[in-house]
Amino acid sequence: MAAEHDRLMAIAIEEARAGAAQGEQPFGAVVALNGEVVVRSRSLKVSACDATAHSETLAVKYATQKLGRRTLPDCTFYATCEPCPMCLGAILNGGINTLVLGARNRDIKQLAKIAFNFNDYTVERFAEMTGWDLKVIEGVRTPECIELYATAAVELTR
Amino acid sequence: MAAEHDRLMAIAIEEARAGAAQGEQPFGAVVALNGEVVVRSRSLKVSACDATAHSETLAVKYATQKLGRRTLPDCTFYATCEPCPMCLGAILNGGINTLVLGARNRDIKQLAKIAFNFNDYTVERFAEMTGWDLKVIEGVRTPECIELYATAAVELTR
Repeated sequence: MAAEHDRLMAIAIEEARAGAAQGEQPFGAVVALNGEVVVRSRSLKVSACDATAHSETLAVKYATQKLGRRTLPDCTFYATCEPCPMCLGAILNGGINTLVLGARNRDIKQLAKIAFNFNDYTVERFAEMTGWDLKVIEGVRTPECIELYATAAVELTR
Repeated sequence: MAAEHDRLMAIAIEEARAGAAQGEQPFGAVVALNGEVVVRSRSLKVSACDATAHSETLAVKYATQKLGRRTLPDCTFYATCEPCPMCLGAILNGGINTLVLGARNRDIKQLAKIAFNFNDYTVERFAEMTGWDLKVIEGVRTPECIELYATAAVELTR
């Protein structure tokens, strides 16, 4: 599974980099089924002027539309960074129960350009609050993911 | 303010009813600025086969696009029911700090057709976790809002 997680996270990182190159915030996501990409996505928040167009929420939208069903319990979600509460709620609403993480919010909070802060929010605290049996796999390509945020051309604000 | 809240919640209720009439789940939302409607929205989850197309998340999307800015601290959000965690996260990402509620999740959980359950999630617990100074105004047209879910033709599932 480690090689599969590495391979799929690399695609999420490609999305984040491609987004950054077009002036977006460098977040990328992949929804996978049986080790194959269902959808890949980047943030469109800046270009769409849409506060909800985060890569992860878009990935849930695209995946449910593409597969033609609103719950995806057989899918695995890859995110270059710990999703914000909205995006984690989208993953919950999409019925996905396995989340693979690159960076953690606590990793990127230390970088100078980061302006958002969700207090003591973590995906685990959110899962506990909502009674969600979420499996979190972390540490996948973490240095590359942290590097995305260290070199971001766009300041990471709302 | 009470008359203004009543008037704007009535529009959110109209949206929820119009959605239900077209086979959607009966949730409605309004984003208002200075007492005027900026956008109004209903759920499109069923027709779009999109797990993220809740009325409230769509309202934030529409409002940020319409006003041409990604944060709306001067706006007030009206929801026929306490928003799910994804939608509350969308309101947080949209920089909105005042939320007016019709029904609470605890009210509609008691109705037979309700299948979702977010454990002990409330908007207040979410706000505390994320360090968000959210002003919640509740009890606006609550019986009408609860009635929306009691008579829902579509089962309230994901």
